[in-house]
Amino acid sequence: MSLSIRELHRFFAEIVDIESVSGNEKQLADTLEEALREVPWLQVDRLGNSIVARTQLGRARRVIIAGHLDTVPVKDNLPSRIERRHGEDYLLGRGAADMKGGVTVMAHLATSLAEPRHDVTWVFYECEEIEDSANGLGIIASQHPDWLDGEFAVLMEPTSAKVEGGCQGTMRFKLISHGIAAHSARGWLGHNAIHDMTVALDKIREFRPRRPEVEGLVFREGLNATTIKAGIAGNVIPDHCELTVNYRFAPDVEAADAEASMRALFDLPGIDFELQNLSPAARPGLEREVAQEFCAAVGGEPGPKYGWTDVARFASLGVPAVNFGPGDAGTAHADDERCRVSELDLCADALTAWLSPLEGADGSPQTSQAEK
Amino acid sequence: MSLSIRELHRFFAEIVDIESVSGNEKQLADTLEEALREVPWLQVDRLGNSIVARTQLGRARRVIIAGHLDTVPVKDNLPSRIERRHGEDYLLGRGAADMKGGVTVMAHLATSLAEPRHDVTWVFYECEEIEDSANGLGIIASQHPDWLDGEFAVLMEPTSAKVEGGCQGTMRFKLISHGIAAHSARGWLGHNAIHDMTVALDKIREFRPRRPEVEGLVFREGLNATTIKAGIAGNVIPDHCELTVNYRFAPDVEAADAEASMRALFDLPGIDFELQNLSPAARPGLEREVAQEFCAAVGGEPGPKYGWTDVARFASLGVPAVNFGPGDAGTAHADDERCRVSELDLCADALTAWLSPLEGADGSPQTSQAEK
Repeated sequence: MSLSIRELHRFFAEIVDIESVSGNEKQLADTLEEALREVPWLQVDRLGNSIVARTQLGRARRVIIAGHLDTVPVKDNLPSRIERRHGEDYLLGRGAADMKGGVTVMAHLATSLAEPRHDVTWVFYECEEIEDSANGLGIIASQHPDWLDGEFAVLMEPTSAKVEGGCQGTMRFKLISHGIAAHSARGWLGHNAIHDMTVALDKIREFRPRRPEVEGLVFREGLNATTIKAGIAGNVIPDHCELTVNYRFAPDVEAADAEASMRALFDLPGIDFELQNLSPAARPGLEREVAQEFCAAVGGEPGPKYGWTDVARFASLGVPAVNFGPGDAGTAHADDERCRVSELDLCADALTAWLSPLEGADGSPQTSQAEK
Repeated sequence: MSLSIRELHRFFAEIVDIESVSGNEKQLADTLEEALREVPWLQVDRLGNSIVARTQLGRARRVIIAGHLDTVPVKDNLPSRIERRHGEDYLLGRGAADMKGGVTVMAHLATSLAEPRHDVTWVFYECEEIEDSANGLGIIASQHPDWLDGEFAVLMEPTSAKVEGGCQGTMRFKLISHGIAAHSARGWLGHNAIHDMTVALDKIREFRPRRPEVEGLVFREGLNATTIKAGIAGNVIPDHCELTVNYRFAPDVEAADAEASMRALFDLPGIDFELQNLSPAARPGLEREVAQEFCAAVGGEPGPKYGWTDVARFASLGVPAVNFGPGDAGTAHADDERCRVSELDLCADALTAWLSPLEGADGSPQTSQAEK
């Protein structure tokens, strides 16, 4: 297909309308790869459905700008549509917030910024929304760590075009109760696995999440049952019940401590605990020099990042990183997921300002577009 | 296939091994119909996968002997197998208890008792284990009520070869909670439908079932969650949760009152109540003359029937009925569903004794085989 890559708003709708639920990113990756390979100043590599495009300009510093291509499952929210609210255009559709706005800005800038101040590594990757072992950024980190060399990373997850530092950790685990099947007319001869699970559900409902302050930013934890399943028929006592729980924890908690606290909370008779996924939090780290430079260039007051993002993965690779991208993170994964279209311009302008070449004999930066 | 209909124990295994989960009774019905149509003293009618075979001997009284052909879903428990426990043979497999032992005895006697004392209507019917509107006995009652004329009915549901009077009522309903989907990193922007359902689950766990005495028999009520389902992904707050609940009530409670009490118990904010199925209980009714005659002939002390059976349907048609059949009702619907094989002989002998023609000039009944 022919992309309107130079017209940011039209290009955004095109990208959203290429459905790319986790595992199904091929078409979107093919489309972007084709566009990137046409650009003379980019070296393009591909691994699975992840694409890394690098300038090789011999700059003193290299920065990384990254975003994932996949979305959670579609729920009657594709193709996208534009809605005008309070005098502003919003694009609604699966991926509009998380995070095809960021992907749009990245592809737009990668194909237009021929002379950035720092060498730039553009990373488009697959499978961020599913199990950690499938994460494209993680796979690149283990197979081609040199592709991720850099002094600083910007992850274009939705932040409503504001800088957000760090990210909360996330842990997913399964609770399993075991009963004994029987005819429900004689329930006392069986043992009801759903009734047993009620104790765990009560624990979740009674849980009071913390709101700790970390390096000046206030985080907000959460504990949620996300899926539950039990039973084979309306007149059979269920002998098996599975509950999936998601715990989000602030960056003042180590991953191992988060796991220990959940194992202790759900140490209940007859209930098995099965860890499915544990991703550490990342501290804000905004005091570092490269982070300060970026923040000064794009402006605004940094805030906390509630959602887990691959900022934590960059942190573990020794690359300081922040979240900064278009879209309302509060609507990510919701049926009415959306992005204020003008935020794409804000982000594109801010990154352009940051990456503009130095000008003048004194080496002071040129006026950024965002400050115009 | 060729059936061992004269060899009760072999025939039993054959019947169990013809899988007949509700909706899939055709093969079993075809097999039985073929065998019954070969019998000169039977008039055979079929409706769907239900078969009614009647003697037309001009006797003063007509009795009905009935059983359903279907089972709950198979759970790795077919084909059947014989296990010897404490010196007794048990047949294990789906339907062994509920109620292919009864079906076996019925087919065996229908094809061998050429001269019963009363005219007999043998009713083999489909879809007893699923929604009431599919119940083969109910469909016959509405389309061919004359096929069910009779003064007394024996329903061969499993009672371990003892007479059981009446049956408990059963009510199935769905509770539905509605939330708002959101990314689980910002759970406070959504509303968790599983967490809301916890209040209903607590009600079920706190429920204290009654054990009322009705006409000298002690019944035992029950309230069970049988299925639960919610959630689309491990990081999305679920916006919908469905819980199926089964309430079993004793024959001293009218169906309408049972429904009212459940609607009151689950009148919870944000939770919808959807009635799926309501089948009234039946009082024991063992004081009636025909019931007394049957009990005297087969012997033993009558007990209560916990499970709902079509005894209640016969009662509503004006036909007094009891439960009497081989198999351990306590294992019905369990994975290790089973029947002590000798109970088929007990039931066959008892029914033969009851139905044997009068002998001798004084018209007294002959000695029953069961009393030998």
